[in-house]
Amino acid sequence: RTVIVKLSSCFLQGILERLDAGEIVIGDGGFVFALEKRGYVKAGPWTPEATVEHPEAVRQLHREFIRAGSNVLQTFTFYASEDKLENRGNYCQKVNEAACDIAREVANEGDALVAGGVSQTPSYLSCKDEAEVKAAFRKQLEVFMKKNVDFLIAEYFEHVEEAVWAVEVLKESGKPVAATMCIGPEGDMHGVPPGQCAVQLVKAGASIVGVNCHFDPDTSLETVKLMKEGLQAAKLKAHLMSQPLAFHTPDCGKQGFIDLPEFPFGLEPRIVTRWDIQKYARKAYDLGIRFIGGCCGFEPYHIRAIAEELAPERGFLPEASDKHGSWGDNLSMHTKPWVRARARKEYWENLKPASGRPYCPSMSKPDGWGVTKGARELMQQKEATTKQQLKELFQKQKF
Amino acid sequence: RTVIVKLSSCFLQGILERLDAGEIVIGDGGFVFALEKRGYVKAGPWTPEATVEHPEAVRQLHREFIRAGSNVLQTFTFYASEDKLENRGNYCQKVNEAACDIAREVANEGDALVAGGVSQTPSYLSCKDEAEVKAAFRKQLEVFMKKNVDFLIAEYFEHVEEAVWAVEVLKESGKPVAATMCIGPEGDMHGVPPGQCAVQLVKAGASIVGVNCHFDPDTSLETVKLMKEGLQAAKLKAHLMSQPLAFHTPDCGKQGFIDLPEFPFGLEPRIVTRWDIQKYARKAYDLGIRFIGGCCGFEPYHIRAIAEELAPERGFLPEASDKHGSWGDNLSMHTKPWVRARARKEYWENLKPASGRPYCPSMSKPDGWGVTKGARELMQQKEATTKQQLKELFQKQKF
Amino acid sequence: RTVIVKLSSCFLQGILERLDAGEIVIGDGGFVFALEKRGYVKAGPWTPEATVEHPEAVRQLHREFIRAGSNVLQTFTFYASEDKLENRGNYCQKVNEAACDIAREVANEGDALVAGGVSQTPSYLSCKDEAEVKAAFRKQLEVFMKKNVDFLIAEYFEHVEEAVWAVEVLKESGKPVAATMCIGPEGDMHGVPPGQCAVQLVKAGASIVGVNCHFDPDTSLETVKLMKEGLQAAKLKAHLMSQPLAFHTPDCGKQGFIDLPEFPFGLEPRIVTRWDIQKYARKAYDLGIRFIGGCCGFEPYHIRAIAEELAPERGFLPEASDKHGSWGDNLSMHTKPWVRARARKEYWENLKPASGRPYCPSMSKPDGWGVTKGARELMQQKEATTKQQLKELFQKQKF
Amino acid sequence: RTVIVKLSSCFLQGILERLDAGEIVIGDGGFVFALEKRGYVKAGPWTPEATVEHPEAVRQLHREFIRAGSNVLQTFTFYASEDKLENRGNYCQKVNEAACDIAREVANEGDALVAGGVSQTPSYLSCKDEAEVKAAFRKQLEVFMKKNVDFLIAEYFEHVEEAVWAVEVLKESGKPVAATMCIGPEGDMHGVPPGQCAVQLVKAGASIVGVNCHFDPDTSLETVKLMKEGLQAAKLKAHLMSQPLAFHTPDCGKQGFIDLPEFPFGLEPRIVTRWDIQKYARKAYDLGIRFIGGCCGFEPYHIRAIAEELAPERGFLPEASDKHGSWGDNLSMHTKPWVRARARKEYWENLKPASGRPYCPSMSKPDGWGVTKGARELMQQKEATTKQQLKELFQKQKF
Repeated sequence: RTVIVKLSSCFLQGILERLDAGEIVIGDGGFVFALEKRGYVKAGPWTPEATVEHPEAVRQLHREFIRAGSNVLQTFTFYASEDKLENRGNYCQKVNEAACDIAREVANEGDALVAGGVSQTPSYLSCKDEAEVKAAFRKQLEVFMKKNVDFLIAEYFEHVEEAVWAVEVLKESGKPVAATMCIGPEGDMHGVPPGQCAVQLVKAGASIVGVNCHFDPDTSLETVKLMKEGLQAAKLKAHLMSQPLAFHTPDCGKQGFIDLPEFPFGLEPRIVTRWDIQKYARKAYDLGIRFIGGCCGFEPYHIRAIAEELAPERGFLPEASDKHGSWGDNLSMHTKPWVRARARKEYWENLKPASGRPYCPSMSKPDGWGVTKGARELMQQKEATTKQQLKELFQKQKF
Repeated sequence: RTVIVKLSSCFLQGILERLDAGEIVIGDGGFVFALEKRGYVKAGPWTPEATVEHPEAVRQLHREFIRAGSNVLQTFTFYASEDKLENRGNYCQKVNEAACDIAREVANEGDALVAGGVSQTPSYLSCKDEAEVKAAFRKQLEVFMKKNVDFLIAEYFEHVEEAVWAVEVLKESGKPVAATMCIGPEGDMHGVPPGQCAVQLVKAGASIVGVNCHFDPDTSLETVKLMKEGLQAAKLKAHLMSQPLAFHTPDCGKQGFIDLPEFPFGLEPRIVTRWDIQKYARKAYDLGIRFIGGCCGFEPYHIRAIAEELAPERGFLPEASDKHGSWGDNLSMHTKPWVRARARKEYWENLKPASGRPYCPSMSKPDGWGVTKGARELMQQKEATTKQQLKELFQKQKF
Repeated sequence: RTVIVKLSSCFLQGILERLDAGEIVIGDGGFVFALEKRGYVKAGPWTPEATVEHPEAVRQLHREFIRAGSNVLQTFTFYASEDKLENRGNYCQKVNEAACDIAREVANEGDALVAGGVSQTPSYLSCKDEAEVKAAFRKQLEVFMKKNVDFLIAEYFEHVEEAVWAVEVLKESGKPVAATMCIGPEGDMHGVPPGQCAVQLVKAGASIVGVNCHFDPDTSLETVKLMKEGLQAAKLKAHLMSQPLAFHTPDCGKQGFIDLPEFPFGLEPRIVTRWDIQKYARKAYDLGIRFIGGCCGFEPYHIRAIAEELAPERGFLPEASDKHGSWGDNLSMHTKPWVRARARKEYWENLKPASGRPYCPSMSKPDGWGVTKGARELMQQKEATTKQQLKELFQKQKF
Repeated sequence: RTVIVKLSSCFLQGILERLDAGEIVIGDGGFVFALEKRGYVKAGPWTPEATVEHPEAVRQLHREFIRAGSNVLQTFTFYASEDKLENRGNYCQKVNEAACDIAREVANEGDALVAGGVSQTPSYLSCKDEAEVKAAFRKQLEVFMKKNVDFLIAEYFEHVEEAVWAVEVLKESGKPVAATMCIGPEGDMHGVPPGQCAVQLVKAGASIVGVNCHFDPDTSLETVKLMKEGLQAAKLKAHLMSQPLAFHTPDCGKQGFIDLPEFPFGLEPRIVTRWDIQKYARKAYDLGIRFIGGCCGFEPYHIRAIAEELAPERGFLPEASDKHGSWGDNLSMHTKPWVRARARKEYWENLKPASGRPYCPSMSKPDGWGVTKGARELMQQKEATTKQQLKELFQKQKF
């Protein structure tokens, strides 16, 4: 193939300058899932205390994403709001500050921006008081301002109302704000369709909107497409962004992969290949999305696949492509002729990979269907989300 | 559950003292596959130059395995023989020495032994001259002696003849020697059955024998069982060892997963879950295997699963279990009742995980069947393995 | 179980009297597919010359359906319009007359009505001239009038326009008319949604409306539900009817199972079980459908499954249930205890039957996607449906 | 294709004359399964009282097989021994006589021989008294002699001991005897391998040996191959015969498809296609088998597929091929170009048909594994086969 030289940006520009100039910005992957498999994050709480406990592990993962082509490093502050993290003195603040420091340190090694992120809060689910929820976001924002992140992301919101509140708080900083919701084509948990969600977010001040988590690449792109159409209809302008799962989830319901019986410890057969990601990157690009990254399940090689697919448009390959041939061409010297025969695009593009699991189905029914309708409605109305109420509900239902 | 306290071994014993005392020794996972996904190893050559290029990445992976419970760190010297690694001065030696230093550094942080490894050589396949092949092993051994590894492993051999040569060379060191072949129940590539392979290896001086790579846990245990029976029939004693793939491969042929159409870039749907590994660990233990580890595909959380399954026998949990509940019990506080309902052993033990890939089959036919019988026989006779001959064969066959 | 006595209807009533009285009317199954497997119908043309060539085979199949519980025998006149059947003298008329005679003969043996049927014509696809198309229907109607069938069915229409023409012609007879379209929830080939199709058919004079063929039971019921809602919105009244495929087709597109790569000679793995049919019958009943039958793939035992599921509502079992236990209870005396353990409803209701085909996927992509968009549009506009035009299109596309 | 003219055998020869002359003899399909679906046989007992109750249904099925190419019609006397059939006067004899009469009547319409068959008896399982078991066979043989069938088949035996007794009795008649066991490659229920079974059967007087029922075509051919090798090793000569299931059963254990969870009411997704049968017929022919037929699941179109595959060798097509194009060529005039594209051998040969069942696995675990080892051994020793004992065992095990 033709040699592609990496252009070193002698002058690092902000997220909006890049997007406005038509650049493709590559996001990073999913920290909680990757670090869970590496032994530093506990599934269930999914909190980021590793930034304090094992900074070298967090730093290493950031580095791998940079090498793979990420232009944005998100601070590892997922679920690091005070109501989630164990309350020991100013522990929460320490975790968030360490996250910012590590991200900045690694970002400086390459061509990357640091983004501070906030996500949906237990407070919203339990009380729905705007002032209180906004106060929680403001507390997190303080750290991001102190550490001077490059821009902000409000991500992983199931309710557009709360996402709007987050955007409003983040906008107070004067920094660019991106907002992604973890919703599918059916819209948010109160039934607001994606197009309308996008409109509300942009009106609240988001310059970049899209989706993250909860659904697979195909479903996520469908949702972003609806957002795009919503914005067009409302004559609003914004950049588009997608950070989906790296799991195939054609069978999940409105609430995404958490309801799938395999979540979170049996998702392996659903993991997408690098070729699936190349298809996703191309499709996202064709749809007009320019901030393209990933969420849970995305490992560094998945991010590299985005960078490789879009190398013709961008004019360069990421560092980690030194260890990867385009479409398997590193197999061209294999000793077995039939393995050498796999060193070509058509092969991997068309492969329908087997699971090696003949006793397993290809799809499963999401859970939550067994729950009585009353209980589900209660939950959706958020009147049942205190631990105690849930416990009672659960006992009544005898799962 | 009852609190399990980790006994710090105040006095680190050698591999044979541990095994002779009936201890369970947990191996580590697959470096080439894990580092390929992290962006530091190139599939195809699969060489370990990362020990020199990116020591921090290799060090981090070792650390994750130690945290996960590994008692043995294998030096990352796979395929680091001179005929595989690009020949730049004494580059190969540098890579191997760095591998030893990194492994020792991390091993010292915990309760682990360092094992130096040699594997099958291109020389054997192309010339089959005992002196020449042994010279290659001796060159690698020199580094291991200089760096004073704790014991040696001859691993990833398809032909027992070459494995025996390797064991004979390694025995010259006076250190304990383990030997694992990458074969299935049908035996080595010349048709020597597993039982006989084991007998030859023990007679050559191996104290520990078993299998690694190429087949899934179930198939690998079947092979070790045949080895055990062979040793019993020959009234020989040796410790047993297994380090299988972390991929389901019920459909592969005699030569293992390399022939599967998904190798190496489409294996995702075959990745085993932590629960699959707990079953494997239990089955291995019941079979009398006491050196239990993994090979390609094994990530730190898979190794942790071995340590967790055998915690009752060993009396302690690994460090990384701080971030993991037994059988999913960390889900017991989830907000959704149906997710909480997954916080139990029966759930994960019986789950048949879906692939989310309704357009893919569950098994595939290994490649190599399309190759003319003549070509295959030629290859098996190893007369066709020079690159030139293969190229000609390949051209003739027009894949 | 409690003994259920069959009420002999001493006085056979017409289709509308029965439905108006709230009776459940059970249709018959698919003649062309069943007789193709028995060796009397050629796939491709699918014409019913067997009524003349092998009346005993047609008679036997009718008898099996009657024994299984069918209350309606449709004359085997599918695709027996002059433009489909080879034109030899009045051959077409002979085939149609024989079909009527055989159906009446067998109907008289039991409690069944005879229905004469017309279906979509090649004329409509090629010329779209109302007068010409109606003339074709009228020709078929003449035979049905001469043979005095009990009522008429316009079935297997992809375009509501043509279905309306058929209903209008059939209404000229004064006999009750049912009309079913072979469409899915997306509506007819011109995009008319199911609800609107139903409204047009009822306005044209149909007393019973619904769907037949092209889609599996679940999809078909979804479509009938939309028809029902359309009628309710338009404040129209009509009886509902469903005669779906006996194949699982969750993966088919707008044009149904014909586009699936398995059509028509590889559909075996999709065949529904008797238990699938019991679920279908219950669901249809709960939806308010009272004329419940089947189409392609329905064998006598599938029809029996409808009759058995609805036996509590109807008060009797069909004759063929003498040879069938409810929910497998005829296995209760099997010599193997694990087979006896299958003699219960929960077992069969929850069974997820394996395909025994590990190399096959669970879903496939409908064909027709590879066809250039232009060609597809052309076809949908029906400008390309003459044989010659299609041939040219086909050649240009080099399948 | 070239026109193939059917040679009418002006002089009908016996089974051995035909086989000795190198002719291919095509058997018929599975009566109990086909008639169960048509509503005339009860699954569980599987007895053939339909010959008396509904002779027209039995006659029709025979006719379909003849049309499809069968050269042998087996009398529908499966499980028609006195200990199976309800004992009402000489009811059993009447059923058997009617079966012979119907088979002869239809055989006379074409080029077919009539074969009388006996199969394994409950007596053998419960008492193992040679005299008593032989007496049961002799009783059945009397009818076959009275009705003068052309030859005899001892089929569906799980124990070679009982099969030998059957052959010995049948040989008393002086007529040619074929013997097929319902075993797989692992041999009979006492562990006698297939090669040895074949040797014993030929020594007992069978001129034709092979397998029927219980396993899919591939597995059955594997078993016949072992029989062939056994006979060759013993320097014995016999014709080979195979009549497998028309279900894919790669996952069944030693006792065949009865233990699969889908037996007998959920086997639909396993039904083989006509193309699977063409592959089977070719493979059987290549293996040297010349009596090629089918058992449970074989419908007339499956038998036709044997006749079509072997038409080049035989020089003619069966009557029912008037309604079937070779390899789908009857689709060549379809209106949709993508359906026309299916009118070719490569298409159907390579199709991997989807199940349309994404929630189902591709393989299942045979039952009987949950039964305690003691119980299974007991059953295999046949000490537990009286109904009472089984009932007790069953109750103890609380399925």
